[in-house]
Amino acid sequence: MLTANPQAVKNITCIGAGPIGGGWSAHYLARGYNVTTYLHDTAEIDGLHRLLETAWLSLTEMGLAPGASLDNLEWTTSLEDAVADAEFIQESIPEALELKQNLYQKLGDIVDPNVVIASSTSGLSMTDIQSHCRTPQRTLVAHPFNPPYLLPLVEMVGGEKTSRETVAWTERFYKAAGKAPLVMNKEVPGFIATRLQEAIWREALHMVANGEATVEQIDHAVVNGPGPRWALMGPCEIFHVGGGEGGMAYCLNQFGAALKLPWSRLVAPELTPELRDAMVDGCAEMCAGADFSSLSRKLNRGLVEIAQIKSRLANAQRSGADKSL
Amino acid sequence: MLTANPQAVKNITCIGAGPIGGGWSAHYLARGYNVTTYLHDTAEIDGLHRLLETAWLSLTEMGLAPGASLDNLEWTTSLEDAVADAEFIQESIPEALELKQNLYQKLGDIVDPNVVIASSTSGLSMTDIQSHCRTPQRTLVAHPFNPPYLLPLVEMVGGEKTSRETVAWTERFYKAAGKAPLVMNKEVPGFIATRLQEAIWREALHMVANGEATVEQIDHAVVNGPGPRWALMGPCEIFHVGGGEGGMAYCLNQFGAALKLPWSRLVAPELTPELRDAMVDGCAEMCAGADFSSLSRKLNRGLVEIAQIKSRLANAQRSGADKSL
Repeated sequence: MLTANPQAVKNITCIGAGPIGGGWSAHYLARGYNVTTYLHDTAEIDGLHRLLETAWLSLTEMGLAPGASLDNLEWTTSLEDAVADAEFIQESIPEALELKQNLYQKLGDIVDPNVVIASSTSGLSMTDIQSHCRTPQRTLVAHPFNPPYLLPLVEMVGGEKTSRETVAWTERFYKAAGKAPLVMNKEVPGFIATRLQEAIWREALHMVANGEATVEQIDHAVVNGPGPRWALMGPCEIFHVGGGEGGMAYCLNQFGAALKLPWSRLVAPELTPELRDAMVDGCAEMCAGADFSSLSRKLNRGLVEIAQIKSRLANAQRSGADKSL
Repeated sequence: MLTANPQAVKNITCIGAGPIGGGWSAHYLARGYNVTTYLHDTAEIDGLHRLLETAWLSLTEMGLAPGASLDNLEWTTSLEDAVADAEFIQESIPEALELKQNLYQKLGDIVDPNVVIASSTSGLSMTDIQSHCRTPQRTLVAHPFNPPYLLPLVEMVGGEKTSRETVAWTERFYKAAGKAPLVMNKEVPGFIATRLQEAIWREALHMVANGEATVEQIDHAVVNGPGPRWALMGPCEIFHVGGGEGGMAYCLNQFGAALKLPWSRLVAPELTPELRDAMVDGCAEMCAGADFSSLSRKLNRGLVEIAQIKSRLANAQRSGADKSL
């Protein structure tokens, strides 16, 4: 049995104090938790404090939870002390399988088996990480996006030995902690968001390697083109809205043929009737109740505001006032 | 010689009145131009008016140019009348090569050869489109992102017979017209932004086809993860900032090995010393003068504001007030 109520958790331990571990510490502190951060070395404390100070400016503007304070942070270089009172553990040590395996072996022995241990790994599989752990059922992947205190995504997936209860409990915990958890059905290398990001990144690298585009052209294209839309809607909903009243079905009829064109080095899958249905039905479910005109109003509204933000940021930078951003 | 001063253009002809042609009409009207829109059929006029009304709400909020008015629109179903007074032509007819070739053949004869004709094509090459045109030197691709009145990107590239003067003139014209033109050095299928978008889209389709993710999971991952960052910075600058003080160089050292991992179906290029230098030097040039702390402050500032926009939009939708968005 796991710690009974995921909404009643008060004490969180963050293992690791780099950009991700420190970012998690900032997030949990801002949500009113008591945080104990384990440092590999006391020399890391200055970097952690700088990160927390920077993060706290944004978090204050976002709105702190009642009782939230940087004073609710403790830190230690003793792993045993760090986990002694933990009701939830967020692990963010460097991405090396052997390091993680050794850590989970140790944590498996010293941490109360009712406490969930979640790994921020961006690419390793929990089946591998938990392989030497004696209490693997309460371990899982919970991968954030940087900075973890500003982007809500947490991709969650268990390893072969993770219990279903652990995944369900942790999803409830993250919702209570103000995150947007995404539970995957199976372990896929790179999870979902990193795969999509990696596809864009690799296409970009190919273009630079082939002299088709420069770094500056690539970034200019994204921030002035598809980027602002992706802040508001994912690639499926964007095409669903792009299809007008006909939605995704119209869009696939219209642009399905483009999947055969050399518009990316990534070869597209066959647009089978099953895939077509999955896309069309998936959009209908996702947008339940929202018609084209309401979706496109929402998109336009968001795009206007994003354009205004960008114009303010650019003006502030031009006027040399960016220190006050 | 082209019409002397790209900043002095007053009369623009938009050929085509679908989402792109109509969207261009809205943009140019909002910037204070006189617009003549060519309709294939009078039946299209209702759709154009609806599009303009929707667009005008956003454009008014963005700020109209002095003298801008929907009254500055004329429309006609006569191609000859449509182009008679044009100082610039934006063509946005359906994406069928033969249609475009026939149109450019005709326009090549009836339009003053000093007037630039720009195609909104999202994938056809200007070398093909201009092949039957007797005055091809003043034709080029100028591909917007939808909606063209809210997203500033215009990808520009000439065909084999396009003059350099045409490209240079049109770049100056778009800057004067409030767009963010991107001049490509060569014709590449899908240009830049569509290639990057297509890479993400194809990876997403593969994931759905393989049961690795649903439509809803894909969109959830993007809008809560990398999406908000891409509204503010392109994929190169994001990794440059993600590398901390060490920037892109640190990032490639740290994550270069991940290019070999199966994190996307798209195989990455070899990270040669030349490619590494192009990425590192490109980021340094692009961010001239801006250090890590100023870039990361700017990113955080923008992410906070985007989170606030999204929260307002979600609240409005939940409360059923989305009609007022």
